[in-house]
Formats: sequence, structure tokens, C-alpha cells
Amino acid sequence: MRISTSSNCRCCPMRTMTVTYTARVATARFGGFSQLLLLWRGSIYKLLYREVLLFLGAYLGLSMAYRFLLSEPQRRLFEKLVLYCDRSAELIPVAFVLGFYVAVVLERWWGQFRSVPAPDGLMLAVGCGVHGADARGRILRRTLMRYGSLAALLVLRAVSTAVYKRFPTTDHLVEAGFLTREERRRLDALRSPYNKFWVPCVWFGALAGQARREGRVRDDCTLKLLMEVRPPHTHPTPQRTPPSPPPQTFRSVSPFQELNRFRANCSLLFHYDWISVPLVYTQVVTIAVYAFFATCLIGRQFLDPAQGYAGHELDLGLPVFTLLQFFFYVGWLKVAEQLINPFGEDDDDFETNTLIDRNFQVSMLAVDELYGDVPTLERDRYWD
Amino acid sequence: MRISTSSNCRCCPMRTMTVTYTARVATARFGGFSQLLLLWRGSIYKLLYREVLLFLGAYLGLSMAYRFLLSEPQRRLFEKLVLYCDRSAELIPVAFVLGFYVAVVLERWWGQFRSVPAPDGLMLAVGCGVHGADARGRILRRTLMRYGSLAALLVLRAVSTAVYKRFPTTDHLVEAGFLTREERRRLDALRSPYNKFWVPCVWFGALAGQARREGRVRDDCTLKLLMEVRPPHTHPTPQRTPPSPPPQTFRSVSPFQELNRFRANCSLLFHYDWISVPLVYTQVVTIAVYAFFATCLIGRQFLDPAQGYAGHELDLGLPVFTLLQFFFYVGWLKVAEQLINPFGEDDDDFETNTLIDRNFQVSMLAVDELYGDVPTLERDRYWD
Amino acid sequence: MRISTSSNCRCCPMRTMTVTYTARVATARFGGFSQLLLLWRGSIYKLLYREVLLFLGAYLGLSMAYRFLLSEPQRRLFEKLVLYCDRSAELIPVAFVLGFYVAVVLERWWGQFRSVPAPDGLMLAVGCGVHGADARGRILRRTLMRYGSLAALLVLRAVSTAVYKRFPTTDHLVEAGFLTREERRRLDALRSPYNKFWVPCVWFGALAGQARREGRVRDDCTLKLLMEVRPPHTHPTPQRTPPSPPPQTFRSVSPFQELNRFRANCSLLFHYDWISVPLVYTQVVTIAVYAFFATCLIGRQFLDPAQGYAGHELDLGLPVFTLLQFFFYVGWLKVAEQLINPFGEDDDDFETNTLIDRNFQVSMLAVDELYGDVPTLERDRYWD
Amino acid sequence: MRISTSSNCRCCPMRTMTVTYTARVATARFGGFSQLLLLWRGSIYKLLYREVLLFLGAYLGLSMAYRFLLSEPQRRLFEKLVLYCDRSAELIPVAFVLGFYVAVVLERWWGQFRSVPAPDGLMLAVGCGVHGADARGRILRRTLMRYGSLAALLVLRAVSTAVYKRFPTTDHLVEAGFLTREERRRLDALRSPYNKFWVPCVWFGALAGQARREGRVRDDCTLKLLMEVRPPHTHPTPQRTPPSPPPQTFRSVSPFQELNRFRANCSLLFHYDWISVPLVYTQVVTIAVYAFFATCLIGRQFLDPAQGYAGHELDLGLPVFTLLQFFFYVGWLKVAEQLINPFGEDDDDFETNTLIDRNFQVSMLAVDELYGDVPTLERDRYWD
Amino acid sequence: MRISTSSNCRCCPMRTMTVTYTARVATARFGGFSQLLLLWRGSIYKLLYREVLLFLGAYLGLSMAYRFLLSEPQRRLFEKLVLYCDRSAELIPVAFVLGFYVAVVLERWWGQFRSVPAPDGLMLAVGCGVHGADARGRILRRTLMRYGSLAALLVLRAVSTAVYKRFPTTDHLVEAGFLTREERRRLDALRSPYNKFWVPCVWFGALAGQARREGRVRDDCTLKLLMEVRPPHTHPTPQRTPPSPPPQTFRSVSPFQELNRFRANCSLLFHYDWISVPLVYTQVVTIAVYAFFATCLIGRQFLDPAQGYAGHELDLGLPVFTLLQFFFYVGWLKVAEQLINPFGEDDDDFETNTLIDRNFQVSMLAVDELYGDVPTLERDRYWD
Repeated sequence: MRISTSSNCRCCPMRTMTVTYTARVATARFGGFSQLLLLWRGSIYKLLYREVLLFLGAYLGLSMAYRFLLSEPQRRLFEKLVLYCDRSAELIPVAFVLGFYVAVVLERWWGQFRSVPAPDGLMLAVGCGVHGADARGRILRRTLMRYGSLAALLVLRAVSTAVYKRFPTTDHLVEAGFLTREERRRLDALRSPYNKFWVPCVWFGALAGQARREGRVRDDCTLKLLMEVRPPHTHPTPQRTPPSPPPQTFRSVSPFQELNRFRANCSLLFHYDWISVPLVYTQVVTIAVYAFFATCLIGRQFLDPAQGYAGHELDLGLPVFTLLQFFFYVGWLKVAEQLINPFGEDDDDFETNTLIDRNFQVSMLAVDELYGDVPTLERDRYWD
Repeated sequence: MRISTSSNCRCCPMRTMTVTYTARVATARFGGFSQLLLLWRGSIYKLLYREVLLFLGAYLGLSMAYRFLLSEPQRRLFEKLVLYCDRSAELIPVAFVLGFYVAVVLERWWGQFRSVPAPDGLMLAVGCGVHGADARGRILRRTLMRYGSLAALLVLRAVSTAVYKRFPTTDHLVEAGFLTREERRRLDALRSPYNKFWVPCVWFGALAGQARREGRVRDDCTLKLLMEVRPPHTHPTPQRTPPSPPPQTFRSVSPFQELNRFRANCSLLFHYDWISVPLVYTQVVTIAVYAFFATCLIGRQFLDPAQGYAGHELDLGLPVFTLLQFFFYVGWLKVAEQLINPFGEDDDDFETNTLIDRNFQVSMLAVDELYGDVPTLERDRYWD
Repeated sequence: MRISTSSNCRCCPMRTMTVTYTARVATARFGGFSQLLLLWRGSIYKLLYREVLLFLGAYLGLSMAYRFLLSEPQRRLFEKLVLYCDRSAELIPVAFVLGFYVAVVLERWWGQFRSVPAPDGLMLAVGCGVHGADARGRILRRTLMRYGSLAALLVLRAVSTAVYKRFPTTDHLVEAGFLTREERRRLDALRSPYNKFWVPCVWFGALAGQARREGRVRDDCTLKLLMEVRPPHTHPTPQRTPPSPPPQTFRSVSPFQELNRFRANCSLLFHYDWISVPLVYTQVVTIAVYAFFATCLIGRQFLDPAQGYAGHELDLGLPVFTLLQFFFYVGWLKVAEQLINPFGEDDDDFETNTLIDRNFQVSMLAVDELYGDVPTLERDRYWD
Repeated sequence: MRISTSSNCRCCPMRTMTVTYTARVATARFGGFSQLLLLWRGSIYKLLYREVLLFLGAYLGLSMAYRFLLSEPQRRLFEKLVLYCDRSAELIPVAFVLGFYVAVVLERWWGQFRSVPAPDGLMLAVGCGVHGADARGRILRRTLMRYGSLAALLVLRAVSTAVYKRFPTTDHLVEAGFLTREERRRLDALRSPYNKFWVPCVWFGALAGQARREGRVRDDCTLKLLMEVRPPHTHPTPQRTPPSPPPQTFRSVSPFQELNRFRANCSLLFHYDWISVPLVYTQVVTIAVYAFFATCLIGRQFLDPAQGYAGHELDLGLPVFTLLQFFFYVGWLKVAEQLINPFGEDDDDFETNTLIDRNFQVSMLAVDELYGDVPTLERDRYWD
Repeated sequence: MRISTSSNCRCCPMRTMTVTYTARVATARFGGFSQLLLLWRGSIYKLLYREVLLFLGAYLGLSMAYRFLLSEPQRRLFEKLVLYCDRSAELIPVAFVLGFYVAVVLERWWGQFRSVPAPDGLMLAVGCGVHGADARGRILRRTLMRYGSLAALLVLRAVSTAVYKRFPTTDHLVEAGFLTREERRRLDALRSPYNKFWVPCVWFGALAGQARREGRVRDDCTLKLLMEVRPPHTHPTPQRTPPSPPPQTFRSVSPFQELNRFRANCSLLFHYDWISVPLVYTQVVTIAVYAFFATCLIGRQFLDPAQGYAGHELDLGLPVFTLLQFFFYVGWLKVAEQLINPFGEDDDDFETNTLIDRNFQVSMLAVDELYGDVPTLERDRYWD
């Protein structure tokens, strides 16, 4: 095919950005998930190393101050503060809050993914229903699919920063071939402050109606059933009387139902972006986690074993377990940060741009190159 | 377009009230959610500062009384009370109760949002199916869409305080252009104590039937498929006999299925409002949280370190960790308070009024201004 | 309208029984849910005051016995028992068990509410599809809707005690106008030990077929699309030959799909009632809660401070925190008790009887009084 | 009706096996669930009394050994072991594991119940769509419904032990009237090692097609809409030319959609049985519970108060609280055991056999005895 | 039947790989799940014994070192380290993290299973709708079903390692009879880097259209309703004029809706594989579990009882309870490892290869061997 809206769509398609790792753990082997701990891309280490270093720096700074800067009475006071903070840290139910919050975010994340509109149903409908191998037929099919892609793109641009960066203006859409200049003019001329993803859907409906009137959608069967559009009752010259009023006979048929599903997904995606998890919930969780680790900064200091405080018999210097806790509590929060907007540019975000390319290429292939393409029938191996 | 039912629908549409913040956290950067902690609108601080001040005032008042008002034996007694309350506070599983309760409320909240009826499907059906660029055609299409908007509005008025404030009487609906005087008269004349949102749906069905009889819905395809309405079999003069009884031939076709989905959403929304989370559950959670902090008011007082009570070696004066707990437990409860009625006037509530404006404007655009509007076909960039 | 199957359906409809309180908390104000704590109807106090008094009585009885009846050695023994029970109470994970159980019950409760059959879709279908403003047309439409209401009622009678009390026999159904004497005779004559809610559905189908044969369902469009019934191909006098076999031409059309959805809801509701949360689960939870508070009855007694038991320095006399725990643990269990059968007569149960009245009145209005009622078309405010 | 495939289907139908208790708790009364604690059938006591006795026996045996058999040094050692086990028992998060596991099992259980195929939709379709009150019409309708019942039965036999016991061979199916000898022969002749529930579905489709060709399915409306089958356009002798090729005109119409839903449920049910909750998960939970109580067997022994171990001041002899824990932890596990295969023969399992009888009887009634049965129309009570 | 794409499909079908154990626990008997503890295939022992041995080895190594290698002062230091680790292990909320994580994985696992495309609906549609018992009819039906199987296979190959191993190249597909050489050539010729499972769907649509034009799909009823394809209005020789342009009259009808559902499942399955649970979440959980047991390795060492550390009065040598914890925490993690990719080769993974064989065999049987096969009608046992 001749489509290459971006350069990276051919080399390593579908797998460049989102981190897919399940193939590595297809079988629950000895060691299991342990191998996953060594991945870097999309890993917790890559996400967290800066925070960990900052936390460690602050911890060690305080530790140094306690050991070398404070006077003896100040140290006694600091020790009391440490013990107080250590006890108080348990008051903050980080695990509980995070568990519930991440569950909510994860469910939305999967819902968002499922609502990314896929053109597969639409392209089968258009490919089987809009006929004609000539230029007119081809242009009709291609334009219909282009309108579908355009509607999806207008939503994805509003939702995904990666897509927005790739297509910052409608000029970029024209350049990438999703929009003609004429269409852009009309789109821009429409006076409405709201997202216009529904406009290509209206065009789609009107164009499908036009195709029906031209007789390009000549067997309403496949098409209409997709759209549940009622077939046109084109009686094959039922009488000698000529079918005089053709605009009434050949009624417009649009691949409507498939289109409707497509549009509903666009709309849902837009709403997912608009109505996010309430800010207060996110703030509550963030405050809980941050407050917990601010408390640990003091409360988990190693005290002078000589003072005989219970639980402070050993001075390791490095707060190994607090770092571990930091790793998986803040890591858990990072899961939420990554997922709350899956259309960003994180390692683990949806590869929306690749998906756009795939969808556009595949729809063009299905409605144009593969049009009318049936392999010759053969008896299969188990024929008798 | 000429619609401006409210003044604020044009300037900053769709984003004025609901707090949308996911774009800020599109990428899980260093610091992550920390930037969200500085937001004010819709934030936990704005929601909570009064409660925090009240709590702090009561705490400090008690603290003062303990330090300066009580006699020595009274202080000993108070100290025992403090220790007793401190131990007892742990008996109240606030985190657990809140976790389950907020999960329930959150699920309902999202369900409520999803059931807000959107006119997009209906407007595509009406725009593609009800024909005629003349005044009659336009008035038909516009009236059909107006009935849809009206049904939604009648439910939203019952459900949302913000919408109710904007349209306190049916006069306001007339003024805003959703209802004509004649229609209001009929609506008011109907003797039924229940919400009448189903009446415009009945009108819609009857008007669509009328449009069909007039031949305005001349290609039943697009329309019927939306509505799964069966096409009228208008044989183009099958015989010499004239199609004498046209009212029987051109049978009424209503965009019924789309309408049905729309109506079902109205109904669901109404029921969400009617059947709320059981009051007992809300009370149980509220009592748990309030009792916990009433207990903390006493139990978390700093006692005289000189008395040597375990865990009271340090007198900070200000109960930092109790305030933190207050922040996120009461904050969590506030999440529930905000979400249990998403149609109120909180910062984070659905912007129902903006949505009403958007829906009305967009449906009029789609069925009137964009009617019959297909861009000229061009070969796309990847044609060969 | 002339319907008043019960006396209370007119005064304060839809809100008499179920406790609807979300309007009070539309905005997350200062104080928030605190105002909800003062409600009595449907409140935790009304549900629990007897249990609380019983518990308190038993507690104080034991307390008196310990203080005044027991001899010194008996008191020492009792003190050991108290300490043992206090420790052991922590072994019972009440919060955990309740959290999971209530989540399950709540989900079923909402599912049950959603499956209460609503006639709105059916009435739109019947109103738009079964024609004729004469008595015959009216009786057809009204009877069809009555069959729908009857099917729902037969299920609700089996499921809801409130409905059963209102209609203990089929005589009451006849009296309330849901059933004619002839229909009751047939219903009773049918030899089947199972619930007969499916019989009115069969009648509905047969009657719709009859209406179609009479030509009352003359435009199959609206109707069939609801029912996805195929239209009858009534060629408008296609030839000179008379349409001899009309029973074959005008084929019966039943509002089948809408009916089917209605019936499926009846059936689902019946099954929700039949297959409840497993008894063992309910018993496990009940035993956990009851055992916990039986233990607390002893374990939370205040011991003589003079004996110097740890945690028993203070004798408050009244077990404030245990009562609080009682309030929200037993309150939580009460949530489950209320919700496990939402068709009872609790303050917070579904107002099934009001719903039955509303549904019957509204369906009659929609198919009879509003029949053929389209307001005259006017240009709307934003016409140009 | 004349159907009595089993003897118990008439006396107390639908309620014999599954324990239905919600009617007892319709209203949240004083005492609430407490009355449920006295039920025996389907109760936790009936399920658990053997396990409890075993546990108690082992506990008392150990207790006796400690008190009477061991020498003094052995007793000291045993006491250390007891203390160690008591501490260690807390390491096992039984409540947590059980909570999550039971939630999963419960969800599957309800899903399984919902996927038990119900013939109600199918019987309405067949009853309204396959015409003729003569023997041929009756046999067609009855056979179609029998095929439906047969498909369901073939799945239920594979899934439910109770059904399998009732119909261990296809002979029993023949005897019970679900299968004729001829059909059994064909079924057995089919060489396929997989469950053959799909075969009656294929027969159903073929038979419906045959009924259409015979003109028995003469109004395709009702039928087709169920099946979304397109109507046959049987022009009532449109011209003088005889409708020569009837096999082409009267096309076969099968109640396909309804059938399809029915078949999909059969298939889903089969898969629920095939893919159970992963064995490892069940083992993990079982090990956790068993290990916990094995530990308690030792760790909860009462030690000699004279030795002065903390928490061992009182020797009750009988481990009341451990028994309580046993009751509800093992009871919780029993919930899972009951629900993981709801088609067994537990008190609380689905009464699949009764359901089979009900479904068969009701479908025969609906398509045969009630065929064409419309009560005479009367004006209802609220006519004017 | 003559199909044996693999050798093991006949002997013990459907049950060879997935571990199905619910039949063993159909009734909640005495002992309950305990019998499941003795299973080996798919059991926790088989999955874990290597990890347990490794853990035990490391533990005992450390234990030996402590007892025999360390000097006295080193032992004192080690003891302090042990006590510190023991306390710190409690900081890691393994149960909590695992509970939430496994719940997420389990839900995806079941969703994945449900999206495995099943041909049952498709085969009923093709069997009832594509007519002709001659070779041409047979080849059409067989080829249509083969295309369905092929689409599913192309996705399963991408998703399942077991299927990939069985069909590493398209040559293997040709050899197994799912693909002809001609089709493979076309598939390979298509220049697209993305998975090509949609290509057989396009072929399916085109071939069904061809069958319609040939008149093989002569009664559009059954077929179209599956596909909601509109029927072709083939008026049975309405006039004397011959139906000259048959390609226009007999419009192509494809079993589109059924196909669409099938394709949607293929697509969903592919996306489940592509978008896995975020790597960070998996890493967080894995780190939590591994860190916990690394800590236990030290923290659960038995110390010299002579040193009098609290809780170290007894030296058992073998850390029984830590091993138990290891068993069910790591076992729980193993549940996740097994389920995160259910298409691997674990004992408990879906038997995708068997499923492929079953689906292929059954679809061929249904559309070929059973074609037109209706048993002769007989009166059933309950006829009068």
C-alpha cells in the first residue's frame, strides 16, 4: 500500500510504545515474574529513580544533621520527634486508599481503551456495500472511510497530547491526507465552539445517501443490515411503465448503524476525557502518600543505639525498608498517574498515533485494494 | 449559529465548571500528581478549609482548657480520658467503611453521567431522514430535535438543582425557546402528578408519523434503520391504477429506535435520582467519620510530658498528623458528598447547563445548517 | 385522568416511601452530610433504637451485677473473663466481612431495581402503532397496556410483600381494574403450579396479531420497529383483483420486541427473588456481628480502676465507643437487611405500589388521552 | 396440563431445593437477620457440624494430653509451642484471602445462574408465529419447543450432577419425552466427541424453515422480528400468473434470533463449567484456611494460669472464640464451596431439575393450550 | 467426521489441558475442598516446589551460618538484624497489594476467555441460509466456515504461544487445511505490517455476496436476519417480463451480523493481548512479594533461645509458618502469573488448540453433514 502518514508505521508496528510483556510470561515458569523486574522501558525504575534519589537525599541530609550538626539536647529532642513520627506514620492508611483509588483508575483506563473507535466494522460494511471498481466507486468508498477516520482523529486530537502534537492544526490534517482543503474550509466555517467530530459523521450520512441515489449502493442488503437501513425496493422493471421518479425509488442508504456505533465511541471517548476522576479524590490520595513519606523522612531515621530506644538497636545507615515502601507505594501511585490519562506520552500509554496509521491504512486496503477480491474456491482437505 | 440560550456558552464552552485536570498529568513526569496539589478550584482545600478551621479551633480550645483552666486532679482525670479516647479511636474502621462506600458512590456517579441523554444519534437520524430544504422541512426537523431537547430538559430540571435554578418554571422554558406557548398549555393541561418528560416523546412519535405521511420522510432507509422502522413499500406506481389512498401507502415512520434509546436514558437518569444510596448507609459512614474525629479531638491532645505517659514524650502543640488524617478522611467523605448528587453546583459537578446549550446548538446545526451539505469529492493523497 | 387505584397516588407521588435525600446534599457545603444525621424517617436511629436499648440494658445489667452482686473472688474471676473477651473480640473481622457482604447485597439491590419492568417503551409503541380514535381503537390500546401492567403486577405480587398485601387475591386485581372477570377465569383455569406472569404476555401477542388483521395496526412502521416486526406489504390495491385473502395480506404485527424486553424484566425480577444471596453467607455475617457484640457485652465492661489493669484506668460507666461501634456495625448490617429484599415495607424500600399506580396511569394517558395529539408547529426562537 | 416428567414438580414447585429466605426478612424488623440463625436447611450448621465436631475433638484431645499425659518439662515445651503458634496464626491473612476469593466465586455463580437458558422468549415467538390449530400445527410448535428444551438439557446434563443423575443416559431422555427414538438414533450416529447441544439447534432451524415453506409461518412478522428474519414478501397472488415456484416465494423463516440467544446461553453455561476458577487460587485459599486452623489447634490451647503467661490468666476449657472463628471462616469457605458448582446437590444449589420441568411444562402450555387464546375485550374500570 | 487436525482431539476432548475440577466439589461435602489439596496437575505444588526449595535452601544456609560460622559478637549483630527485619516485614502490605492485583488480572482473564470467537452462531446462519446439497453448495458453506476459522486462527496465533508453536508458519496453516495455497499467496501478497485477521472476513463478505447472486442464498430470511441483511425482494415472476437483470435483482446477502460479532471478538482478543496490565503495576506487586520474602529470609530466623529475645523462646529449626506464608502469598502471585497470559502453556491455560479443533470440526459437521437434516416429526409423550 502506498500510505505512510508517518515514518515509523512500517518498521515495528503496533508494539513501539505500549509496553507489551505478556508473551514473556506466557508460562508460569520457575522464577515467574522475576524476569520482568529487569525491564527498563515502561518500568518502575525509569518512572521512579528521580523521586527515589530526591527522597534518599533528603533522608541522608537529615541523618547527617542528626549525627553531626545537632547538639546533645537537640539530638534528644530530635529523637523524640522521630519516635513520634514513626508512631504517627501508621495512622495514614496509604495501602487502603491507594488500593481503592487505583482500582477506579484502572477500570476507567480499560473503558477508555475500549472506546477508541475502530474502523473494522465500518470498512467491512463499506467494502461489501458500496459497489463499482471504477474511479467513482473507489473515490466514494475511500472518502467514506476517510470521514470515519477524520471523526476519530478530531476526537483523539482533543483527548491525546501525542496526537495533538502530531496534528497541532487542521493544516496538518490536510497535509496528512485526512482532510481536503475544501473540507477544512467548511469545517472552519461552522460557527460552533464545541468539538466538531460529529460533522464528518453528518457528511458520511449525506454521502452514503448520495451513493444510494447513484445506484452505487445497489444491493442494500449487506449495507443496510449493517446500518439496519431498509432496502430500496428497486423492483427490477416491474412493469412496462418506466420507473419515473427515481429519487423516490432509489432511496438513500447509509451505513448508518455501523456509523452510529463508531460515533458513539467517539463521543464516549470525549466524555471520558471531559469527566475525569474527581480532583478531590486524586488530591486525597496524593496527600496521603506524600504526607506518609514526609513523615517517614523523620520517623524512619536510625537513632543512636546507645540511647536504648526500643526498635533502634541497629543503625544500618540506609533505610532499606523505607525505600522499599517508597518503591511500591509511590510506584502504585505512579500506576494511577500513568493510567489516569492513557493518551499521554508515557512509555505505557496507548500508541494512539500508530493506531491512527493502522486504522487508516487497513481501511483503505479493505475498501479499495481488496475490493471484490475472492480467492477461487477449492475443496478443503477434509472434503470427504 | 444564532443560538445563545445562555451567555456563557460561547466563551469557554464545556470546561467552565467541571474540573478537568487530566491534561496536566498526561505524562507521568517527575513529581507526578504533586502539581495537582496546588489547584484551588474544585480542590480539597476549598472544600475543607472551614471544617479544618472548626476542628482546629475546638482542639486548641480543649488544649487551652487542659493547660490553663483545669486543676491538677482534673488534669489527671483528663489525661486518663485522653488515653482512653486514643485507644478507642482505633475501634472505628473509618478507612474500611469509607473505601467501600466511596466505591459504591463512584460507580453510581459514572452511571449517572453515562445516562445523561445525548442528542447526537437522534440528530444524525433526523438530519439524514427528514427531507426538504424549504421552510416546512426545516420546521419539522427543528421541532423534532426540540422535542428531544425538551424531554431531556424536563428530566434534568427534576434532577439537577443548577438546571432547576435556571429554569424554575415552564415560563423560563418558553422564554429559552425550548417550548412554545401552545405546547406549554398542553403540557400543563395534562392531569398527572408525575414527571411529564415522556410527553414530548409521544409528540415526537406523532410528528414523525405526520412527516412520513407528508412524504417528508421519503427515503425510509436512513431513518428507519435508526428506528428499525420498516420501510413503506411505496411501489413506484406499480400498475396503472393510481395510488389512491396515499395515507395508507406512505405510512408514518418515526426515528423510533433512536428516540427509544434517548427516552430510556431520560428515564434511567430520573430513577438514579429517585433511588439514591440508602440513607442508612450514608448515615453509618457519616457517623463513623464524625465519631472518629470527635474522639480524636480528645484522644489526640498532647499531654504533659512530665507525667511520663507512653507516647507522650513530645508536646508539639499542633496535632499535625491528626490534621492530616482529618484532611484525607473527611476529604474522602467529601468525594462522596460531591458525587452522590453530581447535578448540584459543586465545582466538580457535571456542567449540566453548558451541556444543555451544547446539545441544543449542535442539534440545530446538524439538522438545519448542515442539511444536505456534502463537500465535493476529491481524490485523497494516497490515491495511487 | 380518572385513575385512582389507590388514594395516596395523587398527593405526594413517587416520594412517599423511598427516602430520597440527595437534593439536600446537592452541593458539598460546609457541614456536608451532617444535616443528614438529623433525619428520622429511614434513618439508622429508627432502625436501631430497639437494638441499642436492648444491648445497653444487657450491658448495664452485667455492670450492676459486677459492681454490686459479685463477691470479691467472683469479681476477680469476672475481671479475667472481661480481659479475655476484650482480647478475643479482635479475632472477629466484622468490618471485613460486612464490607464484602454489603457490596454484594448492594449490587443485587440495584440490579433488582433496574429490572422492575417499566411500560414507557411499550406505551410509546402501542400509542404510535395501534390506530383509531374510536371506541374499538381505544379499547385495543388500553387492553394491550393493561396486559403489560398485569404481567408486571403478577410478578411484583410474588416478589413484594407490600404489593401482596394490597392485592392478596386475584379478586383484588379484578377490583382494581387490572383484570376482568373473564380474564381471571381463564387465568385460574390454567393448570400450572408456576407463576403465570407469562400468560398476559401471550395474550398481548395474540391481541396485537388480531389488531393487525383488523387493520388497526395500519402503519407497521413505528410498531414493527419497536418489535422489529416485519411490515405487512399491504400493497395499495396492487391489481384489479380484489385482495381476496386479507387474513394473509394483513399479517399480524405485535409490539413484540418491546414486549419481549418487558417480559425479560419480569422474568429477571422473579429470579432475583428466587435465587437470593446464599443463606450460608448471610448466616456467616450475622453470626460474626452478633458474636462480636456478645463478646463486647462482657469484654468492654469497665473494671475497677483500683485493680490497675492496663487500659482500665478510667470508669466511664457508659460504654460510649462500644455503643458507637454497635451503631455503625449493626447499622451496616441493617443496610444489608433493608436491601436484601427491597420489596418489603421498610422506609427505604422501593415504593412498588406507587410505581404500579404511576405506570398504569401514565400508560393509559399515553395511549388514550394523548393519542394523535401533536401541537401545531411553530418556528422556534432561533429560526434565523 | 398433562406433563409430569418428575413427581415433585407439582406439589411445591420452584421452592423445594434452593433455600429462599428473603420473604422472612422483607422488613428490617427488630432482631433482623437473627431469625435466620435458626434455620436448618441450607444453614451453616448443617454444612459445618461435622467439621466443628472434628476440630473440637482434636482440640480437646490435645488439651487432655497437655493436662494429663505430658511430664512437667514436656508441658513447658508445649507451652512455648502454644505461644509460638498463637503469634504465628496472625501471619495468615485468612479474612483477606477469603474476601477476595468469595467475591470472585459469587460473581461467577450469579453469571452462571443468568446463563441458564429460559424458553420464555422462544415460546412467545413460536406461539405467535407458527400457525394452525390442527394436529400438524400443534406438532410443529411442540416439536420446536422440544428441540429448545433438549438443547438446554444436553448442556445441563453435562454441567449439573443432579440433572446427570436424573438422566444418566439418552434412554432416560427418550423416556422423559424430550427425545424420540428416531432423534436419539441420529444424535448417537453423529461422530463427534464434543457435547452435541448444538444439534437440536440445527434441527430447530431446519424445522422452522420447513414450517415456513408449508405456509405455517404465514405472517412472518411476529416470528421474523424475534429472529429479525426478513419477511417473505408473499404477494397475495399479485397477478393472474400462478405463484409457480413456491419454494422460492415462501422462504424459510426460523425464529432465529430468539434461538440464537438461547443457544448462546447454552454455550456460555457450558464454558462456565469448563473454565472454572483456577485450581491454584482455590488451593491457595484452602491452604490458608486449613493452615490457620491447624495452627489454632495448638496456639489456642489454654495454658496453666499458674505459669503466668500473658493472656493466659483464665482457663475456660472450651475455646469459644476459636470455635466462633472456625464457624465463620470455614463457613465463608463453605459459601465458596457451595457456589463454585451451583449445579450440584447442595441445599442451596439451583433446582435445575425443577427448572427443567417448569420450562418444559410452561413452553408446552404457551404454544399449545394457550394457542390463539385471547380473552374477549371489555372496557376497563377507568374507561371514562 | 473426517477431521483430525491434531491427534489428541478425539480421545479426551475439551478436558486435556485446562484443569476442570468443579465436578469434584459439586456438593459441599464433609471435608469440602480438602480433596482438591491432593491434586497435582495444575496444582500449587507443581507450580511452586522449585521456589519453595530455593527459599528453604537459602533459609537453612543462613541458619547454618548463624549457628556455626559466626563469632559470638557477629551473632549478636545478626540477632539485631533479624529482629529489625522481622519488625520491618510488617511494613510491606503484601496481602493488600496482591488482593487488588489478582482481582484485576482475574477480570481480564475471564474477559479474554469470553472474547475467544466461537463459530456456533455463524455455522447456524450458514447452515440454514446457504442452500444446495450439491458440491457447489457444500463447497460454499465449507469455505465460508473455513474463512471464519481462519480469521480466529490468525488472531489466536498472534496471541497464544501454544497455537503459535503448532502453526509457526502459514505453511502449517495450509497443511492443516485452514488455508489453500492460493489463499496463502494472496494473504502474503498484501502489503501491510499489521495482523491480517480481517482479510478472511472481507473474503467471507465477498463470497456470501457471490452466493447470493448465484441464488444459493435463496431465502434471505434466515440468513439476513442473522446478518440483518435486507431481503432481496425477489418477486416470484411478478410479470410476464422475464427477470432479465438477475445480478441486480438477486442482491448479495452476507451473514454479516453474525460475521461482525465474530470479527469483533477477534479484534477484542487481539487488543487484550496488546494492552496488558501496565508493567509498572506488575512490577510493584512482584517487588512487594519478593522484598517481603527476602526480608523473611533473615527476619524469620530462629534465634538462640538462651539470649531471651521476646518471641524467640522456641527454636524449631524449620520455619513452618514462613513456609506457609510463602506458599500462599507466592501461590497467589502465581495465580496472577498463570492468568495474565491465559494463552500460554500452563496446566491451567485455555486449551486453545483443542478449541480450534472442536470449532473446526463442529462447524463442518453443522454446515455439511447435518445440512437439511430434520428428524421425522412424531407426537411427543404428553400429546394429550
